[in-house]
Amino acid sequence: MTVSPMAGDGAVESRFGMTELDDLPDDLRERIGAIAAKSGFVPNIFRALGHRPAELRAFLDYHDALMDPPARPDPPARPDPPAGGDSGSSSSGLTKAERELVVVATSAANHCLYCIVAHGAILRIRSKDPQLADRVAANPWQVELTDRSRVIVDLALALTRTPELFGDADIAKARDAGLTDDEIWDVGAITALFAASNRLAHLTALQPNPEFYLMGRNPRS
Amino acid sequence: MTVSPMAGDGAVESRFGMTELDDLPDDLRERIGAIAAKSGFVPNIFRALGHRPAELRAFLDYHDALMDPPARPDPPARPDPPAGGDSGSSSSGLTKAERELVVVATSAANHCLYCIVAHGAILRIRSKDPQLADRVAANPWQVELTDRSRVIVDLALALTRTPELFGDADIAKARDAGLTDDEIWDVGAITALFAASNRLAHLTALQPNPEFYLMGRNPRS
Amino acid sequence: MTVSPMAGDGAVESRFGMTELDDLPDDLRERIGAIAAKSGFVPNIFRALGHRPAELRAFLDYHDALMDPPARPDPPARPDPPAGGDSGSSSSGLTKAERELVVVATSAANHCLYCIVAHGAILRIRSKDPQLADRVAANPWQVELTDRSRVIVDLALALTRTPELFGDADIAKARDAGLTDDEIWDVGAITALFAASNRLAHLTALQPNPEFYLMGRNPRS
Amino acid sequence: MTVSPMAGDGAVESRFGMTELDDLPDDLRERIGAIAAKSGFVPNIFRALGHRPAELRAFLDYHDALMDPPARPDPPARPDPPAGGDSGSSSSGLTKAERELVVVATSAANHCLYCIVAHGAILRIRSKDPQLADRVAANPWQVELTDRSRVIVDLALALTRTPELFGDADIAKARDAGLTDDEIWDVGAITALFAASNRLAHLTALQPNPEFYLMGRNPRS
Amino acid sequence: MTVSPMAGDGAVESRFGMTELDDLPDDLRERIGAIAAKSGFVPNIFRALGHRPAELRAFLDYHDALMDPPARPDPPARPDPPAGGDSGSSSSGLTKAERELVVVATSAANHCLYCIVAHGAILRIRSKDPQLADRVAANPWQVELTDRSRVIVDLALALTRTPELFGDADIAKARDAGLTDDEIWDVGAITALFAASNRLAHLTALQPNPEFYLMGRNPRS
Amino acid sequence: MTVSPMAGDGAVESRFGMTELDDLPDDLRERIGAIAAKSGFVPNIFRALGHRPAELRAFLDYHDALMDPPARPDPPARPDPPAGGDSGSSSSGLTKAERELVVVATSAANHCLYCIVAHGAILRIRSKDPQLADRVAANPWQVELTDRSRVIVDLALALTRTPELFGDADIAKARDAGLTDDEIWDVGAITALFAASNRLAHLTALQPNPEFYLMGRNPRS
Repeated sequence: MTVSPMAGDGAVESRFGMTELDDLPDDLRERIGAIAAKSGFVPNIFRALGHRPAELRAFLDYHDALMDPPARPDPPARPDPPAGGDSGSSSSGLTKAERELVVVATSAANHCLYCIVAHGAILRIRSKDPQLADRVAANPWQVELTDRSRVIVDLALALTRTPELFGDADIAKARDAGLTDDEIWDVGAITALFAASNRLAHLTALQPNPEFYLMGRNPRS
Repeated sequence: MTVSPMAGDGAVESRFGMTELDDLPDDLRERIGAIAAKSGFVPNIFRALGHRPAELRAFLDYHDALMDPPARPDPPARPDPPAGGDSGSSSSGLTKAERELVVVATSAANHCLYCIVAHGAILRIRSKDPQLADRVAANPWQVELTDRSRVIVDLALALTRTPELFGDADIAKARDAGLTDDEIWDVGAITALFAASNRLAHLTALQPNPEFYLMGRNPRS
Repeated sequence: MTVSPMAGDGAVESRFGMTELDDLPDDLRERIGAIAAKSGFVPNIFRALGHRPAELRAFLDYHDALMDPPARPDPPARPDPPAGGDSGSSSSGLTKAERELVVVATSAANHCLYCIVAHGAILRIRSKDPQLADRVAANPWQVELTDRSRVIVDLALALTRTPELFGDADIAKARDAGLTDDEIWDVGAITALFAASNRLAHLTALQPNPEFYLMGRNPRS
Repeated sequence: MTVSPMAGDGAVESRFGMTELDDLPDDLRERIGAIAAKSGFVPNIFRALGHRPAELRAFLDYHDALMDPPARPDPPARPDPPAGGDSGSSSSGLTKAERELVVVATSAANHCLYCIVAHGAILRIRSKDPQLADRVAANPWQVELTDRSRVIVDLALALTRTPELFGDADIAKARDAGLTDDEIWDVGAITALFAASNRLAHLTALQPNPEFYLMGRNPRS
Repeated sequence: MTVSPMAGDGAVESRFGMTELDDLPDDLRERIGAIAAKSGFVPNIFRALGHRPAELRAFLDYHDALMDPPARPDPPARPDPPAGGDSGSSSSGLTKAERELVVVATSAANHCLYCIVAHGAILRIRSKDPQLADRVAANPWQVELTDRSRVIVDLALALTRTPELFGDADIAKARDAGLTDDEIWDVGAITALFAASNRLAHLTALQPNPEFYLMGRNPRS
Repeated sequence: MTVSPMAGDGAVESRFGMTELDDLPDDLRERIGAIAAKSGFVPNIFRALGHRPAELRAFLDYHDALMDPPARPDPPARPDPPAGGDSGSSSSGLTKAERELVVVATSAANHCLYCIVAHGAILRIRSKDPQLADRVAANPWQVELTDRSRVIVDLALALTRTPELFGDADIAKARDAGLTDDEIWDVGAITALFAASNRLAHLTALQPNPEFYLMGRNPRS
């Protein structure tokens, strides 16, 4: 983390220490190594969770099942074309950009520094929109979005901060706007996973890698 | 679910349908079958998540890593004897009863019907206290607890509803009260996992199995 | 109260001491004695309020006027049959089960341990539904109810936590759903009375009698 | 009520109609008639509750037990002289002005028009301070008060809006500041009673009598 | 300020001291002197802000632009006659009484003692309704108002406490009710200005001049 | 604004239209022209407020008085060296970087898109820290800061969202941490001004100029 005169000494990346790649079990070292090779650095979340390999492994599995699902063999017809510039392999349901949109919106409502900055970077890349992440992070409730994106974000926000009020009315709004039950599940399950992720980051006072702040800000890059 | 004249027709156990044991992949059928054999029924959460096997598998792995950890070979000395009547195999860190206490407290703060009733039953059994779960569920903030239990619950509650305010002061209170960093992690990580679980239950309007309501209410049973 | 290893020593039933039946003025001793004879124990609320006989007497009078009203000579026709299994003597307005439903819902929103447990027991008996009270207590906002019960609970909740926002819109919803003005008054007045009761229980840290936890859980009993 | 061009037609004093003095049962007509004779008008709350005589009677009894308690034969010594200009007959515990202070503070936190205006008038008279009621009503949390008055108001406010958080810490602060348990009970019980009163006024959209707005504003009168 | 036995010594009108008229720069002395000549006293807000003349000057300019706008040469036709008894010179847009209504409503939601009392006095005078200010201050959300006044107040309240939720729906409601965009701007901009004013008064613990409490209470005066 | 597939058509920069530089009165055209010459574009806030020149002029004057104060002739000694990399001309009180820190923190708490993005850019430049603005915007309550910066931000946050609770305790914390009364005023007054600015931006749905998103992200630039 950049050392800043106003921001404290910046020496602490996580409240409970970090585990380096070499100290992880083989499967995790390989798996996270592949991510690091692609992005050029090891995202701090993996180092912060590394001393509890079973938890880290389950977290990664859950994350991949929701954020990086395999292309489905039998894509249902969908009249609405996918929003965003996502060219990912998901052949049905939410686009990868929409999945990141859910993450940034729910993390913004939970004021989670790590997730806003890290997934904001991924949202910039997936959506090919260099401003969208900052705009959603500032105010997910009222940021201007397409109708489909607004319905997705509203569903996520309803579940994020007052889950006890979530109910049939929220589901009905999403269905009326054309979301399939599979898409509603995706939005709800991603919101649930990041309810956990956000709290792990708050628990550990996790700092984003410096690289995340700049990724995807230049549409050409 | 019991059909009640005031409670609607009770026909719906979950908003998006249920997957029966026989329709699960082999590993999940075997794993959940073992739980069902022990408790006498398939907890509804597994049937509600079953149509997404990868997510269910990761959820189970995460749950087991935190709620049913293996005995550790090298237990650190701990001056405070474990509270509660837990005779489980965990040889260090939080007792199993304390882990369930965290679940009931955070689920109460999130008003999650399934988790309060299902984990309330487990808390009655683990703590050998037939009233504790109802008391924590009614008011986790002020229910009378031992000092150690109070610190654990306060830490969980701080992270549950206003995670953006969670910080060094919360950690310091827990440490000052004698919690180890490993125990603080356990409390925080269980709170995070059930921030997700609670929202999955709200998403699916999940109903508790009728058996949970009565389990452990008679201290002799 | 049961002494529990996780729950503190359990020696204190109320923050300001208890008054035994024999120390009450004659009229109150007789009146509360009759309740005790019927239920087999003196509900703790009476012992906690007993050192202020004038307040206890007014509280009892108010309670009886709303929760145990006499059969009315002139029952208005009502198209909707009463919900719940109530076989009480009230010949019009809310059934006794519905009155207890209002109490449990408003006490749940106020997180009042005594009222949730004590009136939860009565609701189980009045509704002949052994799960309803636990379900309403966990989440009164979204628990599945019949349409009439939902309207009643929504009206009570609107007045419970944000009374400054209560207004014509809430009244109109209740009337549109078929509640008479007399029934709306009952819901509102019971909510008001338990706004007071809940706070008296919080003031005194009142503990429920152990008997309440188990009453009515077996539909046959 | 004064008809005002900006305030609607002002024709409705209460949502469910008013009962005139002559239509009340004898005991209530006599009792409220005595109040009306003293103040020059029938306070609207009595007319609004009049069609339910049993409830009105219990409400009046509760009110009088807390707001107009008889002089006690055996006043305990109290080192702190009573605050306020109260020359009432209460020989121990809270002064009558302090009781009204609790009412105005809790009613302000609940934004109850009737109680703020009606009891604001009584507070002006009891405290002989023509500004105090308006100041407390505007901001009970931070209005400048004597130390004793501040402790009383803080105790009431803690119980008013978030009763689930009320606990030993609030009691300890009040005791540390010199309040006796009897005085703490008075503050808590008055707060509880007006939690009910405020909600009855919100339920009925009760309007204050015009006379209340001006009473006690001139210190000479 | 009147010294009151229950209200502390009343010696402090503002947390950071007061600047007297004679110590202000010429232009401010003249401008505020004119106000003082009209009302008979120097409103405390000017004395509290006086040691920062540039800020006071900008505050006054902003205030006058919104609260005391010049008559416009080209008044647009408006089918709705202005509500309230305002006979001021504003020939279009909100009446002066409506502007003060916005101030009292937003200050009530922010619990700002100075602004409620000082602008409450002005609202009494502008509206010729001696009760309106007390009624709005007690509960701006539900006070009975004409339809037009209710729309104006709802718009102000939406922006006051949860500005992040303010959006197209609020604008649409105001337009549907007949407010012009110019009037919507006025409501929003006055709300914004008093979001600042209220906080300056909270910052300085500013006390209202005693004269404000009584101004305009007698409709004849 | 960049047109983005997920973000709507992006055609609207402000809800009530924009006024171009050439259509402003001479003094404002000159004043804002100077700003535009320096930054290379006309910040959208000036175009959004431009059709009300008197309000825009007062807003600019207030802004400049607080955010760009002249060097003071008589700087009081201050033991704490100024935090941040600010090399601005202010010779006492808060540094310019600290003033922008207050703006970003309060705007983050109010979820104001325009102010977070525009003043975030300025904070990056003033603090010479390219990450600080994103970190404060994500979570002003818990972002790691130097002790002095933390006190400043805490003071601003206390006044931003719950001004009714702001009081002597907040002032005492700031003074105990070494802030002078002049600095406390600056923090409070800037917070107040941006309580207004944030609401003007919410009122107009104001969009940041695209340039702001990238300014100051490269520490060399």
